Amino acid sequence: MAEASARKRGRGGGGAARRAERTAVSIETAKYIERNIPNFEILNDEALEIIETNAETILEEVGVNFVDNPAALKRWRDAGADIDGERVRIPRGLARKLCSTAPSEFTQHARNPERSVVIGGKNLVLAPVYGPPFVRDAAGGRRYATMDDFNKFVKLAYMSKWLHHSGGTVCEPTDIPVNKRHLDMLLSHMTLSDKPFMGSVTDPSRAQDSVDMCGILFGEEFVQQNTVMTSLTNINSPLTFDDVMMGSLEVYAENNQACIISPFIVGGAMAPVSVAGTLTQVLAEVMAGVAYNQLVRPGAPAIFGAFVSSIDMGSGAPTFGTPEASLVTYGAGQLARRLNLPFRSSGSFCGSKLPDAQAAYETANSLNMGLMAGVNFMLHSCGWLEGGLVADFEKFVMDADQLGVLHHLAKGVQIDENGQAMDAIREVGPGGHYLGCAHTQANFKSAFWKSNLLDYKPFETWADEGERDTYKLATNRVEFLLNNYQQPALDPAVAEALSAYVAEKKASMPDAFT
Amino acid sequence: MAEASARKRGRGGGGAARRAERTAVSIETAKYIERNIPNFEILNDEALEIIETNAETILEEVGVNFVDNPAALKRWRDAGADIDGERVRIPRGLARKLCSTAPSEFTQHARNPERSVVIGGKNLVLAPVYGPPFVRDAAGGRRYATMDDFNKFVKLAYMSKWLHHSGGTVCEPTDIPVNKRHLDMLLSHMTLSDKPFMGSVTDPSRAQDSVDMCGILFGEEFVQQNTVMTSLTNINSPLTFDDVMMGSLEVYAENNQACIISPFIVGGAMAPVSVAGTLTQVLAEVMAGVAYNQLVRPGAPAIFGAFVSSIDMGSGAPTFGTPEASLVTYGAGQLARRLNLPFRSSGSFCGSKLPDAQAAYETANSLNMGLMAGVNFMLHSCGWLEGGLVADFEKFVMDADQLGVLHHLAKGVQIDENGQAMDAIREVGPGGHYLGCAHTQANFKSAFWKSNLLDYKPFETWADEGERDTYKLATNRVEFLLNNYQQPALDPAVAEALSAYVAEKKASMPDAFT
Repeated sequence: MAEASARKRGRGGGGAARRAERTAVSIETAKYIERNIPNFEILNDEALEIIETNAETILEEVGVNFVDNPAALKRWRDAGADIDGERVRIPRGLARKLCSTAPSEFTQHARNPERSVVIGGKNLVLAPVYGPPFVRDAAGGRRYATMDDFNKFVKLAYMSKWLHHSGGTVCEPTDIPVNKRHLDMLLSHMTLSDKPFMGSVTDPSRAQDSVDMCGILFGEEFVQQNTVMTSLTNINSPLTFDDVMMGSLEVYAENNQACIISPFIVGGAMAPVSVAGTLTQVLAEVMAGVAYNQLVRPGAPAIFGAFVSSIDMGSGAPTFGTPEASLVTYGAGQLARRLNLPFRSSGSFCGSKLPDAQAAYETANSLNMGLMAGVNFMLHSCGWLEGGLVADFEKFVMDADQLGVLHHLAKGVQIDENGQAMDAIREVGPGGHYLGCAHTQANFKSAFWKSNLLDYKPFETWADEGERDTYKLATNRVEFLLNNYQQPALDPAVAEALSAYVAEKKASMPDAFT
Repeated sequence: MAEASARKRGRGGGGAARRAERTAVSIETAKYIERNIPNFEILNDEALEIIETNAETILEEVGVNFVDNPAALKRWRDAGADIDGERVRIPRGLARKLCSTAPSEFTQHARNPERSVVIGGKNLVLAPVYGPPFVRDAAGGRRYATMDDFNKFVKLAYMSKWLHHSGGTVCEPTDIPVNKRHLDMLLSHMTLSDKPFMGSVTDPSRAQDSVDMCGILFGEEFVQQNTVMTSLTNINSPLTFDDVMMGSLEVYAENNQACIISPFIVGGAMAPVSVAGTLTQVLAEVMAGVAYNQLVRPGAPAIFGAFVSSIDMGSGAPTFGTPEASLVTYGAGQLARRLNLPFRSSGSFCGSKLPDAQAAYETANSLNMGLMAGVNFMLHSCGWLEGGLVADFEKFVMDADQLGVLHHLAKGVQIDENGQAMDAIREVGPGGHYLGCAHTQANFKSAFWKSNLLDYKPFETWADEGERDTYKLATNRVEFLLNNYQQPALDPAVAEALSAYVAEKKASMPDAFT
């Protein structure tokens, strides 16, 4: 009796405790994913070798353009490339050799050391949507993004358990002048969150501002010795490297900060309409970009990027979450691993105008593919809508919830004695049930992924509660998370110094809106 | 000039032709998927051997129950098993040995030979949802299913390009007596479609009716020599085989028709809460079931089934499209291949009450997993809603469209000269674009998967057209397909004989509604 009563109290105290647990606001962040599952390898060795040989042929025969960048041409000439105007032709083997000084994995430090991430190897780091000029939510519809929206997204990313990274331009704060908004965005990432973040790439001077602000946040010496930012360097596919992107890359590389070298591919427009042809071009472009990055500073961290979408040949519209993009990404992952480089792809890709079933199918296709393709850094892992034109608040929390699925898939299968569960099978036997057995009681809390959003209730309960669809549940969750946001602590002197830097920089130049 | 003009006519005649092509109703059915991609192998050899050893231990030490089935107990005793009441303990190695006479792949014939499917090997055959007592659509909401609904689903499956199979109990026609509805369902599959279908398993006499009606449709001799039906034999997990299911299995096996032997697992309730433990039980159950099937008739076609969901440990509700179910299915695929048996899993699994984003995330997770897990027969590949309680019309066409993604993913990467596209990359060069190049023109029609449902239009066009979400587009597509349905031809004498059989059978027994 006493034992039963104690057990009842022990579990029953649990009644209130469990309710509290369910309603408490978690600002826990899961550790970045360490895969305990294999990668999906879609290309055999013969196919990989053909593509690698062809990419070298492209670099050697066709070459790449470095536009408006005499310093880059000089670096290439000194390294042994053939220069013809802005065209750089790279002798077979040279680009791959130059890439070999880039690290296969590196740590990106966060100001909260518990939030630092290791990019590369078997790891997967998840970062939110990047770049949309518009935002959308249920209350306000589709509209130009503002700094207020930006701050809300940074708060949501901070509150999202399965997001490891605060991202960069989560949306474009269009109410701030173009030449100053990077300062406000960086300040937001640095003060409203303690997760790692990305630097500005829209101008070399803004990249330098990013490095300088990190000097205030982390200390200048720390920044010179460690990587505290990733940055997104898009290649103007096909085969073109512009001076703005390369100028920013030069700043980051010189300061030992990480560059994602990403071909920007709409298949059939910026690359051949075939998967193998696209992979060939992607590899040639990334090798040229990373090689250049290593010419600037050997050993600087670089990431093999692949932004891949298809095209609707009827309308010319880009399409997302399609099988051809998946095939390219699987192959690109293999090519990246053979270069010993960390690999980046995209996550919540979709073409839908609403966070509806189309958006969810396309996004789930991309997220599953990203995990299986061995991606190390997944940009746009939540919140992307309408081909990247819109950052959507509801979709942000819907996708962020699905990122938990990736964490649990990556655990793979535990095959130890507890995983084998032979005692449970013996205990329950034919016709029994497992709910009450000792093994279930010992393991149920961690056994299954549990959504923080989706509805598993019986039909009648769900109907009584107003027949809420995923969109409505997501609206509620956005509101809940923003209402319960608590700013992480930051040394007031550092916060003040950052604000002063931003104010001074802003005062030093006139507003520019283009 | 003449050449240009001819070319223009040639392509321009295409203007009207292309429009006609876009609006024409296709009743084309794609060939079943023949994978040109590897399977995803999540377990290493050591883990597989542990699970296989443990499954044999379960069969030998714990055993399985064959309930109310003296004939089964006799068969097992004669084969060398240890019988204790209804408990059958199977000596180590015996079940696997008995399984070895089942074919690794087999043809299921359709009455239209072009629609016959090969189940096993690298193939994937897609069949619709099975079993829901309710249906839902935008116009009528959620309601009990009727025979009229059933017929509509058979028509939709017939009209769906990516569905290879007409399925079985696509929904339960609850307006027809329980003891007679199998007759109407079979007649529907046989006359409204020419795709392959499934037989009844709710009573051995209904299995026999299924065989007899196939005798009329295909000819009795053909049926005895060929497989013309699959049937779904659920195991009452854990480790229990009831007399109704086994009685139906006996009828099908004796007549050389295919049985899917499927543990019915809600993880944590009918199986251990761990992945490896669930796999152990699944393997033990399938081996016992297929072994029994082979005791009835060596060489009869059998399929290794796995119906796996998780449980929400808070509410006890089953959950679908979860990572743990995926891990089990990946592992089960490997175990099936090591038994040389075709493998079945489920497709459009979801727990949502509506065909909303939750439903789409969960379904896409399951569909992608099914392709990668090496599934050979995917039941419920479209239309499943609310944990299988509802067959949803809109979701049916939404999911059926996504099945095209699986077809295109399965193509893998073409690495021939055309796939390599080196001429295209040389032709376009740095800064160019591929839309007009020769390689794109030659390949664009087949290069990319094209949805028949999803919206890729620019925001403004989409807004002008009424801001339709996926659900609305799906409502339109259901209506379009049903309005354009054309019944496939059938020999009038056969149609008459089938109707007469159904009428006679119905007249021979009183209605039963339970």
